[in-house]
Amino acid sequence: MKKIFFTVGPSELYFTIESHLKEAIKLNIPSISHRSQEFRDIMKKAQENLKKIFQFPDDFQVIFTASASEFWDKQLINFVETNVGFIAVGAFSKKFSDIAVKWGKRGSVIESPLGSFPTNEDIQFTNNPELIGLTHNETSTGVSAPLTVFEHLRKSYPESLIAVDAVSSVPYPTFDFNNIDILYFSVQKGFGLPAGLGVALINEKALQKAESLREKGILAGYSDDLITIAKKASENQTLSTPNMLGIYLLSEVSQDMLNKGIDKIRREIEYKAAVMYQALDNHPQIELLVEKEALRSKTVMVAKTESDNQSLVSFLNNQGIVIGKGYGEAKSNQIRIANFPTHSKEQMEKLADLITEFRF
Amino acid sequence: MKKIFFTVGPSELYFTIESHLKEAIKLNIPSISHRSQEFRDIMKKAQENLKKIFQFPDDFQVIFTASASEFWDKQLINFVETNVGFIAVGAFSKKFSDIAVKWGKRGSVIESPLGSFPTNEDIQFTNNPELIGLTHNETSTGVSAPLTVFEHLRKSYPESLIAVDAVSSVPYPTFDFNNIDILYFSVQKGFGLPAGLGVALINEKALQKAESLREKGILAGYSDDLITIAKKASENQTLSTPNMLGIYLLSEVSQDMLNKGIDKIRREIEYKAAVMYQALDNHPQIELLVEKEALRSKTVMVAKTESDNQSLVSFLNNQGIVIGKGYGEAKSNQIRIANFPTHSKEQMEKLADLITEFRF
Repeated sequence: MKKIFFTVGPSELYFTIESHLKEAIKLNIPSISHRSQEFRDIMKKAQENLKKIFQFPDDFQVIFTASASEFWDKQLINFVETNVGFIAVGAFSKKFSDIAVKWGKRGSVIESPLGSFPTNEDIQFTNNPELIGLTHNETSTGVSAPLTVFEHLRKSYPESLIAVDAVSSVPYPTFDFNNIDILYFSVQKGFGLPAGLGVALINEKALQKAESLREKGILAGYSDDLITIAKKASENQTLSTPNMLGIYLLSEVSQDMLNKGIDKIRREIEYKAAVMYQALDNHPQIELLVEKEALRSKTVMVAKTESDNQSLVSFLNNQGIVIGKGYGEAKSNQIRIANFPTHSKEQMEKLADLITEFRF
Repeated sequence: MKKIFFTVGPSELYFTIESHLKEAIKLNIPSISHRSQEFRDIMKKAQENLKKIFQFPDDFQVIFTASASEFWDKQLINFVETNVGFIAVGAFSKKFSDIAVKWGKRGSVIESPLGSFPTNEDIQFTNNPELIGLTHNETSTGVSAPLTVFEHLRKSYPESLIAVDAVSSVPYPTFDFNNIDILYFSVQKGFGLPAGLGVALINEKALQKAESLREKGILAGYSDDLITIAKKASENQTLSTPNMLGIYLLSEVSQDMLNKGIDKIRREIEYKAAVMYQALDNHPQIELLVEKEALRSKTVMVAKTESDNQSLVSFLNNQGIVIGKGYGEAKSNQIRIANFPTHSKEQMEKLADLITEFRF
């Protein structure tokens, strides 16, 4: 049986992927030169479509990496000489701060209990961070940072670069890029592509910071050198042969999303989230993990189960539906449900109905 | 028209890729968890099949990266404190030595005129290199290093790590892994996969070197940290979500190659190389770039054309065949023809016939 994946990433492929894959083979996309005009046009289309979706200013470059987690290292190498700040609200935002230590940086971490997000008053960095890293949507807990935090960070730390991991929320949020310098994600979640491609949007302020570090003799090598990578990207090129098939699929799926209308996709995500949260909230044996409604992610919905989640997971599996278990220690007593653009209203309604009728 | 690509990478897909892609979608490979037993089994199959093809010893780990060029940086970060040696015989082997400079290492480079390879007597490193990097098959010129060079390097520099870029020759050569510590390549050439996946084989000696650098306080961060990556690989796992589709395709294509017989594939490559080199050598307006027969690559065949290669390229293109132009400055007066496992004897004979009858 062909299953539907509501897992939080890798997840269900965007529903047009199969036909784009066929077309890619027909057009010899994996065989053409990555230096050809044909491939540059594909790069350009992907970059321009992302600009239309995210509405970022002209001084941003769209670069491609192999994953979002790889980009944790690249940021620390290129943008941080000594001090970095983090807002850590779960496993993935904590991971970034751990990597800073691995690169010998001095990290200041503002932590918040699982399922919560610190208030603006609680966000006080004392180490004058060169870069502040935060996860917009914490995939392990389903906490979504309030969009007001970016404005607060910009006002409080105008010199700092603000770097946003948006891996499991894009393309849903409407970010104000006046308050963001770096935004990055991988494509196997909201964009519904096969894993193996990351995207980073980087502005001029960030690149100037990288230049200033380079002038101080702080090295970035070749494949970690974001200045050269961004310059190549501005010419619709990459440093070396990239995941060309992934970039082609992104150019096509982003086009499909624009054709459908990104606002419509956002409204549908809100509708589907309302349906699912209501079902989870009303279930007598299930409790939402994130107490504060405003912090509940629209794209990654997490709930605690009264007893071991396996019976629910198996019940849904028998209906051809795969949901996510909890992250790490919460593996057996939490569930995570993705609400990405590829998931239809009908599919989400069906899943909500099945959960509603289920008893542990 | 569906074309046949004899370009040197990206190149023609392995002839079974299309059906494996269909099967991958059917099996939900891009949607399953990269931490699931199902995906670990795929990783394991890919790793074990590569071991069967390359016959490397048990102390080697198979790790996956996004590209071979990314692995240039990773080697320098993990295996070199100060001194590194290179044998540079073309654009790509030179590039690796340039990257060492970017990481602040002291590189000693033995260069050789284009189309040649230094003799063992000419290979004298005076800087006691911790790692010696060389390209087995120089994709820009079609020079293939004699396999005896590895034994010479091991005997002359027993302490050094010997790191081989085999990007455009695998799976053809039968390497003796007693004389190699690191071998790496990407999959869009000889393995006929879409680009976006690199493979590195790393032995215990190399990993111990990395450990010793780490103990000295030399940092490698997270996604550049080969010790952790190798440990994950030993558990059929990756650090973060990898190019799962690529790894699945590699597990299947490597199986197809083993089913056909890797020796048979090697014999066919030798036959096809003989056919094409004879056609090029006999053509009155074409001259082989590599004078010394023993150094001529069996997998990347390069020749000089009497006048601009465009007329030949267009003539072949009209027949549905795409060949490579020269690299860099040689773009218009050299041609490069790939001879990979996916290219059939009949296709190569047809191409040889077309070139034979062509006049500039």
